[in-house]
Amino acid sequence: MPDDATTYSAAGVDIDAAQNALRSLRNAIVATHDERVLDGVGGFGGLYEVHADGLQRPILVSSIDGVGTKTAVAAMAGDFSNIGRDIVNHCVNDILCQGARPLFFMDYFGCSKLDTDVLKQVVTSAAAACQDAGCALIGGETAEMPGVYHEGESDVVGCIVGVVDYHKRLPSKHVKEGDRLVGIASDGLHTNGFSLARHALGGVALTEAMPGTDTTYAEALLVPHRCYLRPLAGLIADKKKVLALAHITGGGIYDNLPRALPERLGAMVTRGSWHVPQVFKEIQRLGQVDDMEMHRTFNMGVGMVAVVDRKAVDSVVRHLNEQGETAMDIGEVTAGPHEVTLV
Amino acid sequence: MPDDATTYSAAGVDIDAAQNALRSLRNAIVATHDERVLDGVGGFGGLYEVHADGLQRPILVSSIDGVGTKTAVAAMAGDFSNIGRDIVNHCVNDILCQGARPLFFMDYFGCSKLDTDVLKQVVTSAAAACQDAGCALIGGETAEMPGVYHEGESDVVGCIVGVVDYHKRLPSKHVKEGDRLVGIASDGLHTNGFSLARHALGGVALTEAMPGTDTTYAEALLVPHRCYLRPLAGLIADKKKVLALAHITGGGIYDNLPRALPERLGAMVTRGSWHVPQVFKEIQRLGQVDDMEMHRTFNMGVGMVAVVDRKAVDSVVRHLNEQGETAMDIGEVTAGPHEVTLV
Repeated sequence: MPDDATTYSAAGVDIDAAQNALRSLRNAIVATHDERVLDGVGGFGGLYEVHADGLQRPILVSSIDGVGTKTAVAAMAGDFSNIGRDIVNHCVNDILCQGARPLFFMDYFGCSKLDTDVLKQVVTSAAAACQDAGCALIGGETAEMPGVYHEGESDVVGCIVGVVDYHKRLPSKHVKEGDRLVGIASDGLHTNGFSLARHALGGVALTEAMPGTDTTYAEALLVPHRCYLRPLAGLIADKKKVLALAHITGGGIYDNLPRALPERLGAMVTRGSWHVPQVFKEIQRLGQVDDMEMHRTFNMGVGMVAVVDRKAVDSVVRHLNEQGETAMDIGEVTAGPHEVTLV
Repeated sequence: MPDDATTYSAAGVDIDAAQNALRSLRNAIVATHDERVLDGVGGFGGLYEVHADGLQRPILVSSIDGVGTKTAVAAMAGDFSNIGRDIVNHCVNDILCQGARPLFFMDYFGCSKLDTDVLKQVVTSAAAACQDAGCALIGGETAEMPGVYHEGESDVVGCIVGVVDYHKRLPSKHVKEGDRLVGIASDGLHTNGFSLARHALGGVALTEAMPGTDTTYAEALLVPHRCYLRPLAGLIADKKKVLALAHITGGGIYDNLPRALPERLGAMVTRGSWHVPQVFKEIQRLGQVDDMEMHRTFNMGVGMVAVVDRKAVDSVVRHLNEQGETAMDIGEVTAGPHEVTLV
């Protein structure tokens, strides 16, 4: 080969590095498998047998999403240890809103130049979160794309497939005026609003302590996306109690809560009925972000909203709190318009 | 709002632009749906009912992948009209290697700043390719990630779920020494090796005519990934003829063909038994790329390899050619080692 010959390594792509990194992750990935996963790691596609015992009419529920520029904060802080968990939990919560339990998950990691330590952190935490959610990690893809990503930056995408019994899918048709809205606390930004947050916090070093807390800005921003599967699984099996769920992600409560409601209904949400974590207050203060903009970008401390029959609200709140969540009545379903009003 | 207040738009993310673009794509997306897709566009997850009539033991087969830096060539040429088709066909071919037909697909589009025209081109062509493959486009995600992607660059990722009857999954256990390898022509690079190609072609303007052809370099590079579902669907139903399939993607024939063979078997592939398209010759010539490196990066003109019983090889080649493919006998399955030898 002549001295100036081109190789894929010289072009910025190292196939062997990715394969070696994945080999070391094999055990963590295989630990998420059970007898429903028919092949090991490495085939052209992942094979999964749905065990739909007890389901009258099994329906697959799927979602694809990314963690957004939370990766940029992780890169700055040198800590990707929860980014895999973030994308898994985001996806698990999304399909939970239709009553589904997760079956399997696939991840995608794109970057300019592969940092195998970063990849290992991402896949290890994705595998751990999959295991927690009873979900098999059955596929993944790693792409080195020099010239597309900025140096040191990356994108993390996940795709989930779950299952729900047709007759138990959410939202229920029985959502009605007067139903209560039960908010479940988030653990911070989760995986949304990071571009605005980084912009607003542009003037501070993220490694500084955040006023009024014992964490740095970076630590507060990187707290992983909370998974609401376990505390809600029992409740959604009983369709009379939880009628609908809204995962509060990009677009905040304004965009996401209406997705759980019929066109003819709206929602009235009471400000001050939940605790707004300090990180949101700091973003608002330092970026002078308008209140409306905050609520249409961030979850503001409420990661999931359950629409609950008025008679069941006390028992639902109690059950969730007993499960270790922080749940509270934050408002009510109203007769149209199909939007959220903060009062 | 004070003049220096921060909004999500100012931070480089325009939620409304993405939503408006997607609204205009609704018809193209819905055209891929049939009665198995239970919800329309916009829920937290896509709902899909598998109709497994006639399958004794339905197994889901899934894959996630990206188009790599083909997006960089598309950005340079200002032509994303086939990038959606690229990722769909890549995914369809991947699960076809396990004998699966596609059920549904989800796309992800990441970029620095959303160009709605680019997004429309990507989703429109993904929807068209889905329709051609009888696959429902049931979800997608668009992410603006300022600071992560270079300006004007993007990443396109897709995730597919298909189904195969357990007893008809590929590769078959009956792959044996002496089976023939039938190569099916590719339409160029498909979606792999673009970083090396761009590096090798770094000295030429991609808008120039490529010697010995009537196309420009960019046009030759952007020819969409060929879908092998239709010509192979009939053949793989008959397990006695096609015993295994290898989709020749990243890693070339060296890395991909062994994935379709048992550990104890290898393959001998005859150089010159197929036509190597001019674009590969130009990449090799201009980049002075080593022959081995070419074959472990690019498909070199063979997009899919079918492992075929010796007695069936003539009828398989004839069938494929009648279906509009260019198929040829390119080699043989050998008794170990588990690797490809080019002779």
